[in-house]
Amino acid sequence: MTERYLEDFAVGQQFSSGRVCIDAERIKSFAAEFDPQPFHLDEGACSHSIFGGLAASGWHTAAITMKLLVDSDFKPAWGIVGAGFEELSWPRPVRPGDELRVESEVLETSVSKSSPERGILKVKSTTLNQHNEPVQVFVANLFVPCRPASSTKHHD
Amino acid sequence: MTERYLEDFAVGQQFSSGRVCIDAERIKSFAAEFDPQPFHLDEGACSHSIFGGLAASGWHTAAITMKLLVDSDFKPAWGIVGAGFEELSWPRPVRPGDELRVESEVLETSVSKSSPERGILKVKSTTLNQHNEPVQVFVANLFVPCRPASSTKHHD
Repeated sequence: MTERYLEDFAVGQQFSSGRVCIDAERIKSFAAEFDPQPFHLDEGACSHSIFGGLAASGWHTAAITMKLLVDSDFKPAWGIVGAGFEELSWPRPVRPGDELRVESEVLETSVSKSSPERGILKVKSTTLNQHNEPVQVFVANLFVPCRPASSTKHHD
Repeated sequence: MTERYLEDFAVGQQFSSGRVCIDAERIKSFAAEFDPQPFHLDEGACSHSIFGGLAASGWHTAAITMKLLVDSDFKPAWGIVGAGFEELSWPRPVRPGDELRVESEVLETSVSKSSPERGILKVKSTTLNQHNEPVQVFVANLFVPCRPASSTKHHD
């Protein structure tokens, strides 16, 4: 898979990831290290919580989403490097046994005025479960390099 | 530490976390599972990357920040449950050996119109390194329950 420069992305372009299954044990071990709250740690303790049962930490879902993106054919030339997020939300819980995938869409591309060798790619990524329900949505601004002059000259 | 209801939070209130040291091996193993890009995996391979050396995945920094918040005296009564983020950015890289801590400030509290038993707490959390430089900033909207009527009556 070729790496993409800013010029290789276009508004409306879409990218799909592979799929990954979510395991109860990894939900609990991730939470034990990073987000030790009852609804992420213990099926029994959390039936009356706001989640109504064991749910993955949102940061676990975010990290799994990143893995799916890195493994997809999205491939900006510098890697997936976030300048910042305008939005990040978890509309519904991720449960043990869920199968997640990511759908991404390019919202905007713009060359940097101060650093014309790079630009910003604005992309919306939606993480969906096996029922096609969104479990995470973000809008990210990524640093992406412009195609080097030598690279375009090469094709003259 | 008592759990806090929406009424226990006030605009301008601040919370500080403990501190945690960042380890090169955990940077690399987290990245291998969730964000396998050269600048998060290998000191040698990344000296010419946009990060100029090994840096933690932003999602690793976010997860570490969550652990610091959960362990702090912030303690909303339902736990730290994010409705969504308005902003999330990583202004500079997290390096092996960095020591991180989190400073949080309440920006806004509002009772839900549709569900008056709960509200939204808007909080800004800044993760700082040992040089007091921000390495992550987010503005989160958290679900926080209002104090139950029975609980206030108890003090009459």
